[in-house]
Amino acid sequence: MDVRLINPFIDATLHVLKMMASVEAKAGKPYIKKTECAAGDVSAVIGLTGEANGTISITFPAKSIMAIVSRMFGETITRVDGEVSDAVGEIANMISGQARQKLEKMGRVLQGAIPSVIMGKDHQIKHISSHPIVAVPFESDDGGFTIEVCIEE
Amino acid sequence: MDVRLINPFIDATLHVLKMMASVEAKAGKPYIKKTECAAGDVSAVIGLTGEANGTISITFPAKSIMAIVSRMFGETITRVDGEVSDAVGEIANMISGQARQKLEKMGRVLQGAIPSVIMGKDHQIKHISSHPIVAVPFESDDGGFTIEVCIEE
Repeated sequence: MDVRLINPFIDATLHVLKMMASVEAKAGKPYIKKTECAAGDVSAVIGLTGEANGTISITFPAKSIMAIVSRMFGETITRVDGEVSDAVGEIANMISGQARQKLEKMGRVLQGAIPSVIMGKDHQIKHISSHPIVAVPFESDDGGFTIEVCIEE
Repeated sequence: MDVRLINPFIDATLHVLKMMASVEAKAGKPYIKKTECAAGDVSAVIGLTGEANGTISITFPAKSIMAIVSRMFGETITRVDGEVSDAVGEIANMISGQARQKLEKMGRVLQGAIPSVIMGKDHQIKHISSHPIVAVPFESDDGGFTIEVCIEE
């Protein structure tokens, strides 16, 4: 996978979290995911198709997403409920949309499927592909989270 | 969503499990999913795009999938590990492929993204859409499992 395809997802993640939740996140160094051991409590997955098949996911620990959604809603969220899962789906949808717009400007056209949000303590996600899966860790005052991108090209 | 779009997924699920694992499953009555309370231990999600956006998922309790994969591999599987998650990804990919072939014969062309497999005890999946999500429960001698289909049309 062309590593230049990752930057639009990083930029979109930073922008969406800033815009929706006033979260100033910082992206860490992207790495090729070797195992599926990274675990989280709430994730969203969006399939990609078009000139290449792929998938993106964003995974939050409960603590991070409760803090982020508390900022979004302007009230303290203390449990991962339906409102939180809807918010994660919306965040993922906006990241997918903005990243794909940027990719389109680079001449790379991908379609995004609808998001599926997964809730469950310490779940793991494994994207089934023989192509590399790039993970990008993010840090913020509200805690960390991770995006993963796989585009089969 | 046109309910006729569901049958190809039901047929493909029955066929793939029979072919890959000699599992004789029976489909229960499809229903519109109202809450995200159905929980499982291993799931695969595949995004759909094309003339409509959508997603499909298949969710297994650990007991069911260990029994099914034991049949596939011809050896007793006692834990949900990387081999099991790969098998679930492959099962989902084949269901997606076969169902989309059948849909294409009905004049409905959808592309499938790559599968993402989720492992985690009692996780829940919520597809983020304002359109109905149809769930189909299956039973077999190896235990039950559920598929969910959402096509935004």
